Amino acid sequence: MNIKYLSQRAAQAIDVELMAPGGGGFVFEQLVELAGFSVAQAITKEYHHDKYPRVVVFSGPGNNGLDGLVAARHLTHFGYRPKIYYPKRADKPTNNGLMRQCTELDIPFVDTPEAGLQDSDLVVDAIFGFSFSGEVRQPFVSAIEALKKTQLPTVSGNLNNIGFEPSMLVSLTAPKEGVKHFKGLHYLGGRFVSKSMEKKWDLNLPQYPGTDQCVKLC
Amino acid sequence: MNIKYLSQRAAQAIDVELMAPGGGGFVFEQLVELAGFSVAQAITKEYHHDKYPRVVVFSGPGNNGLDGLVAARHLTHFGYRPKIYYPKRADKPTNNGLMRQCTELDIPFVDTPEAGLQDSDLVVDAIFGFSFSGEVRQPFVSAIEALKKTQLPTVSGNLNNIGFEPSMLVSLTAPKEGVKHFKGLHYLGGRFVSKSMEKKWDLNLPQYPGTDQCVKLC
Repeated sequence: MNIKYLSQRAAQAIDVELMAPGGGGFVFEQLVELAGFSVAQAITKEYHHDKYPRVVVFSGPGNNGLDGLVAARHLTHFGYRPKIYYPKRADKPTNNGLMRQCTELDIPFVDTPEAGLQDSDLVVDAIFGFSFSGEVRQPFVSAIEALKKTQLPTVSGNLNNIGFEPSMLVSLTAPKEGVKHFKGLHYLGGRFVSKSMEKKWDLNLPQYPGTDQCVKLC
Repeated sequence: MNIKYLSQRAAQAIDVELMAPGGGGFVFEQLVELAGFSVAQAITKEYHHDKYPRVVVFSGPGNNGLDGLVAARHLTHFGYRPKIYYPKRADKPTNNGLMRQCTELDIPFVDTPEAGLQDSDLVVDAIFGFSFSGEVRQPFVSAIEALKKTQLPTVSGNLNNIGFEPSMLVSLTAPKEGVKHFKGLHYLGGRFVSKSMEKKWDLNLPQYPGTDQCVKLC
C-alpha cells in the first residue's frame, strides 16, 4: 500500500482546507466528532470492552485533547467505563460543551496521572497533536513520565518526539512523516476527505470497510 | 421490547435538553452529524450500494433537511452516488457549510423532484421533521406527490400526516407516537442519549450493537 506520509506543513494545510468555507466547508465540531469517533471505534477493534473495560484518557491542552473527550464519550456508549485526566482546560464554548457531554454521561475527571492509571486497563494518550512543537511543560512532563512507565496498552493519536511509544496509533486524515517507522498497531481515521482533496494532496488513502470510520494500516 | 413512543412535546423537550449547556451540552452541528450518519448507516443495512447505488435525497427547509445533507455525504463515502433535491435553502452558515461539504464531494443538486427520481434506485425523504405542522406548501406539495407515485424504495426520517408511507423509517433519539402503527422497516438512530436522560424520560432504549449508530427495531 503506497500511502502518503504527510509533512507537518501539509497536514496543517489540509486541516485548514477542510474547514475553509470554499473548501471542505466543515466546522471544527464536526471534524472533532468524527475524529473522536474514529479513535473510539479503532479501540474496539483491538481492545474489546470485555477485556479492557476501564479506559483512562489523557487529554492535552489543544485540539488533540478534545478528540480524547469525544472518544471517551463514544467509548461509554460502546460499553467501556472511561475516566479522563484533563489538567489544562481552556474556558471556551467548544471545550466546555465537550466536557459537559462527558459529565452528562457520568465520566469522572481525575486530578493526577496516577489516579488515571490506577485501576485502568487501557490508556488513550490524547496529549499532543501532530503540530505540537517546543518544550513539554508541567503537568504534562509528569503525565508522559507516567505513560512511559505504565505496563498498560496505550493508544495515541500521534507520535511526538517525547520518548514514548504507544502500543497503537490512530492517525487522522492521513499518517504523518514522523510515524513512518512506527512498529505497533496502526489505524487511520477521519473518513471525510473528498476525492478532489485526496488527489490534490496525492494522499492515496486506503479503502475504509463498510461504514467504518477507521481502517487498519498495519 | 417496551420502547417508549414520544409525544411531539416530549421529543422537542429532549432536543432542547440535548443542547442545553447544563444538559447534554451538544452543539447542533454534532447532533446533525450523528443523526445523518445514523440514517446513512441504516440505509447500508437494508439497501446495499451494489444494488441501490443511485440515491436521491429530498431535503426540506428545516433541520430534517440538514440531516439529509449529512446522510448524502456519508453515503458517498460508503460507495453510493447520491444527488440532492433541496429547493428551499436558508442562507445560514450551518446550512451553507453542509451544502459545501456535499459540493466538495461532487454531489449534484437537482432542480425538480422528477430530475431527482430519474435514474435513481432509492429515495431518502428528509423533507419534514417530527415537529412539522401546518399546511404543506409548494414546492413540497409536488415533491410529496412525486414520492407517493414512485415505485422506488423510500427511507424517511419521520412519518408526517402527508399521505405518504415510506418503505423504511429511521427514528432519531426515540420513536414518536405517530409511528406506532408503522409496518415497514424501522431503525432507531442517534446514539447520544445519556443514561440519566433515558431514565428521566423513561425512554427504555434498545441496545445498539457494537459501534453502530443505528439499531433495528423491526
